[in-house]
Amino acid sequence: MELVTGGAGFIGSHLVDALVDQGRKVRVIDNFSSGREEFLSHHLDGGSVEIFNEDLLDREAIMSAMEGIDTVHHMAANPDIRLGTEVTDTDLKQGTLATYNVLEAMRLNGVGRISFASSSAVYGEASIMPTPESYGPVMPISLYGASKLASESLITAWAGTFGAKGFIHRFANIVGPRGTHGVIFDFIHKLKSDHSRLEVLGDGNQEKSYMSAHDCVRSMLHIISMDEEGSVLYNLGTGDTCSVSKIAQIVIEESGLEGVEIAYTGGKRGWAGDVPKTYLDVTRLLDSGFEPTAMSEDAIRETARDLILEIGL
Amino acid sequence: MELVTGGAGFIGSHLVDALVDQGRKVRVIDNFSSGREEFLSHHLDGGSVEIFNEDLLDREAIMSAMEGIDTVHHMAANPDIRLGTEVTDTDLKQGTLATYNVLEAMRLNGVGRISFASSSAVYGEASIMPTPESYGPVMPISLYGASKLASESLITAWAGTFGAKGFIHRFANIVGPRGTHGVIFDFIHKLKSDHSRLEVLGDGNQEKSYMSAHDCVRSMLHIISMDEEGSVLYNLGTGDTCSVSKIAQIVIEESGLEGVEIAYTGGKRGWAGDVPKTYLDVTRLLDSGFEPTAMSEDAIRETARDLILEIGL
Repeated sequence: MELVTGGAGFIGSHLVDALVDQGRKVRVIDNFSSGREEFLSHHLDGGSVEIFNEDLLDREAIMSAMEGIDTVHHMAANPDIRLGTEVTDTDLKQGTLATYNVLEAMRLNGVGRISFASSSAVYGEASIMPTPESYGPVMPISLYGASKLASESLITAWAGTFGAKGFIHRFANIVGPRGTHGVIFDFIHKLKSDHSRLEVLGDGNQEKSYMSAHDCVRSMLHIISMDEEGSVLYNLGTGDTCSVSKIAQIVIEESGLEGVEIAYTGGKRGWAGDVPKTYLDVTRLLDSGFEPTAMSEDAIRETARDLILEIGL
Repeated sequence: MELVTGGAGFIGSHLVDALVDQGRKVRVIDNFSSGREEFLSHHLDGGSVEIFNEDLLDREAIMSAMEGIDTVHHMAANPDIRLGTEVTDTDLKQGTLATYNVLEAMRLNGVGRISFASSSAVYGEASIMPTPESYGPVMPISLYGASKLASESLITAWAGTFGAKGFIHRFANIVGPRGTHGVIFDFIHKLKSDHSRLEVLGDGNQEKSYMSAHDCVRSMLHIISMDEEGSVLYNLGTGDTCSVSKIAQIVIEESGLEGVEIAYTGGKRGWAGDVPKTYLDVTRLLDSGFEPTAMSEDAIRETARDLILEIGL
C-alpha cells in the first residue's frame, strides 16, 4: 500500500488518482488545512483509498498511518511560499519538522521508501540558467525553499544512516486543476472580484519554469519506477519558462473579459523571498525517457481554463 | 559587541580568544553541555567577556542575549556527529531549531550579521574530490550534516527574505587544544585506559581534511573582514587530507608508548553516517589571501601533543 501525505491537496490528489489508476491501494494522510475532501470524493466508493484526517505534527497519528506501507509519497507542506514572511515558523513546522516526523515513523515501522516533493526554490537566485541538479552552492532565499532543502537533507541522511531509499523531486512551478494557490489561481480570484483591472505583483518580468500537475505526477512515478541506486534527485519541469506578464495575458484571454487593465506593483520581485527568474535544466529527466505532454505556456493556458471553470468569474 | 553561541566550546572558545585579542567585547551564550568554564576562565577578570549560561532552545534567553550585538558567531551545535544514530532528534534540535531560534531573535532585535559554523559533512559522499563549494547536489548522509545544511538554508532564507547578512563556513575536521570529541580525542582516551592496544573504528583508510582550530578561527575572521556581497560561503580547510591509520600512528608516536597494537574494527565507515573520504577544495579560501599555518598532518600532530597534556595518559 502507498501512503500519500497531503493526498487531499493539489498535487497529492492528482498523485492519488494516478496510483489508483495503476491499481494500487492508497492511504491518504491530510490535515485538510489546504487539502479538500472534494478532490478525493470520486474515490470514496471505490474501496482503493482510505483517508486519515491527521496532522503530520502528531507523531502518534503518523505511526498508525505507516502500517502496511511500502512507499511514502510525501507531498504535504505549507503550499503558499509567501506565507513564510508573516509567521516565520510555518515552513519550519509544516516542512522540516513534518518531514522529520514522517522519516522517524518510517524508520520505527520499517518503511523503506520515500518519494518527496521538493522544489526549484532550493536553488534560490541561481547564477547558472537553465539550472541543473549539479548546481551549487544551493542558497534558497525563501523560508519555503529553506524547508524544502532541509527536508531533502533529512531524507539523504536517513538514507545514509538508516538505509532508507529516497527519491527527491525538485519541482518547477506546478499548475493544473484543483490548484489552491499560485499566480494563475490569484489572477482568477482578482478578476472575479474586479472584471476591469488585474493587479500583478512585481514588474511582470519574473519568469519561471512551469509544468502541469498531470506531467508532474507522471514524471515522479516514472522516476520511482526506474529505481536507480542511491538517493535519487531530479529536476522536474518542461525545459522552458513563461513570464508573469504572459501569464496575465493568457488568463485574461481565457477569461473572455474585455478591456482589462493590468496594473504592476513594480519591483523585480513579487514579494520578499520571490526568485525573479527560475529556469530548470531538465536534461536528466528528458534523457531518462520522460516526455512532457505540455510545455510551460500550454500548461498555463489549460490550467487557466480549468481554474476559471472551478472558481467561476 | 559580538555574540558567540557555543562560546565555551571547542572552536567557540578559540574564537572568543581571537575576538578579545582584536579588542572586541564578547558575549558568550552556552548551555555547557559540552562547553567548559575552564575554556573561558582566562577571560573572567579581563572585563571583555560576559557569559550567559542559557540554552538556544530557550527563545526568551536568546532574545535577552541579542541586546547591543552587531554580529552573531553561531558555533553552538551537537559536537559529536555520531550521536545522531541513537537519538534521532539531537541534531534537529541543537542544530536546525537552535539556528532558527537564533535567526528569529536576530530579526526581532535588528541584529543583521551571522557567521555560521557549517561543515564539510553537508557534501555527504561527494563524487568530485577535492570538493569545491559549487559541488551539487549536496546530499549529507549523517543527521549532523543534514542539520548543518538545514541551518545554512535558514540563513540564506533569512538573508533573502529579511535582509540579514550571512557568512557560512564549511569546516574541514577541526582539531586543536580543548578538543572535546573526535578521533584524536578518542584515541588518547583509549590509550589512557589501555596502554597496549588502540581500537580504530573502520578499516583505518577513512581519509579526511583537517585544519587547526587556530587556523579555523583566523580564516573565519578573514572571510568576515572581506565583507563580500550577498550570502558568503567558503570551504575552510588546508587543502590536503590525512588517513585515520596515519592519525593512529601519530597519536601513538606522540604518546611515547611502545608496542601498541592497533586493532581495526573493519568496514569502510567508522559508524553509520560516517563519510569514508572527505577532501575539501579550498582554492577560493587560498585565493582570497588566507594562508594556513599548518597542513592536516602537522595540525594533527600538534593537537595530539596538546590533548595528551590536557587529558593525560
